[in-house]
Amino acid sequence: MSRESLEARLRQIGAERYHDKHPFHHLLHSGGCTPDQVRAWVINRWAYQAAIPMKDAAFMSRCTDPAMRREWRSRIEDHDGGVEEGGGIRRWLKLAEAVGLDPDFVASGRGVLPATQFAVDAYIRYVRDMPLLQAVASSLTELFAPKIHEQRIEGLLQHYDFASTESLSYFRKRLTEAPKDVAFGLEWVLTHADTPEKEDMAAEALIFKTNVLWAQLDALHSAYVEPGRIPPGAWHPGEGLA
Amino acid sequence: MSRESLEARLRQIGAERYHDKHPFHHLLHSGGCTPDQVRAWVINRWAYQAAIPMKDAAFMSRCTDPAMRREWRSRIEDHDGGVEEGGGIRRWLKLAEAVGLDPDFVASGRGVLPATQFAVDAYIRYVRDMPLLQAVASSLTELFAPKIHEQRIEGLLQHYDFASTESLSYFRKRLTEAPKDVAFGLEWVLTHADTPEKEDMAAEALIFKTNVLWAQLDALHSAYVEPGRIPPGAWHPGEGLA
Repeated sequence: MSRESLEARLRQIGAERYHDKHPFHHLLHSGGCTPDQVRAWVINRWAYQAAIPMKDAAFMSRCTDPAMRREWRSRIEDHDGGVEEGGGIRRWLKLAEAVGLDPDFVASGRGVLPATQFAVDAYIRYVRDMPLLQAVASSLTELFAPKIHEQRIEGLLQHYDFASTESLSYFRKRLTEAPKDVAFGLEWVLTHADTPEKEDMAAEALIFKTNVLWAQLDALHSAYVEPGRIPPGAWHPGEGLA
Repeated sequence: MSRESLEARLRQIGAERYHDKHPFHHLLHSGGCTPDQVRAWVINRWAYQAAIPMKDAAFMSRCTDPAMRREWRSRIEDHDGGVEEGGGIRRWLKLAEAVGLDPDFVASGRGVLPATQFAVDAYIRYVRDMPLLQAVASSLTELFAPKIHEQRIEGLLQHYDFASTESLSYFRKRLTEAPKDVAFGLEWVLTHADTPEKEDMAAEALIFKTNVLWAQLDALHSAYVEPGRIPPGAWHPGEGLA
């Protein structure tokens, strides 16, 4: 009973706060972004993508249970991949190339908005330092990811010339990877959040994570859409092109 | 030229300070340990084994280079292994069973000497917090590991009934795993320690790590050999038997 109510509570957080609600995503998926706005998104979201394996390693560095580490390890494998074929990170650079950016420029992390980097770094620290229950619960935004990825694939293919099976392979791959990860994480949280206090902690962690995602889009929107004030040191259109 | 002198300096640190020189290892490998002294070693060394994947994850959590993370990931795979077959940690519990201990007791970490746990925790923190060069250099005790593992396999097989291919499989597996890891780490350190100051840093890191290993055996020797004063809360002979 308590498991069901907690799961409903977590899903409600997603319904209210997940970044699929952010106006930047509406703009992006409906074809309303300029090429430079798409580039700004690709450059800044890189900072998040590149940090995910470090976040997962931070989790494993505090996880004393080998069985749980084994489950978690596949997340790093998904993003880093093998030497030859690479993983999610390399697929993101395919997208960077497709929108006309130099992948080495994107991979350098230069031009990323400071607010984005702060949010990403806060996520790594959270997973490293907070109670294990909250470290796991913060990953549960993956519950809501397949829907936004499906919308994105459809919207980008419909509206932008750069969109293709190859350039969007990152998102398509996540459609199968994310559900596997989140099934384990959700089960773990529902099992371990066995007091009202712990249920609150799990909900807080998921809210924190939705804030991490939302803050990145706010920074992006502010710099490149409205009011369009690019902060010192951040990427300017024309830089980093292939 | 500088590479060669640094490698020689690092190897000299091993020659002087690696824990193959510790009297406990001489006792163990020459058949001089009582069954309870062997058990105390298995219980305490568990704390170190169990922490190694966490240490390697701590390293990966700060490593921004996907290629380097890919190389490092195999260390965690070696120790945690797969769900079915397990890895080095599970092989260590085979040794625990062979010496008459309840593997669940050993895996619980109960009875581990506080000084051992402090040393192990210091190693994880070092790898997480110190400059990357030193985090890598601290792993280079693996340069000296195959020799001690060979001595150990030979000595244990010769002197103890519990020793068998299965119970010693941990050490035999490390004979092939360690050289692969250390080849990468050594090359990286020799390439990146490109100033006298950085050479000193690399040497200090390796000294730190030899101290981590040596301190564990000092604590073990003091508690269970001479003077044989077991600290409060630590394992007593008779506890945790299968």
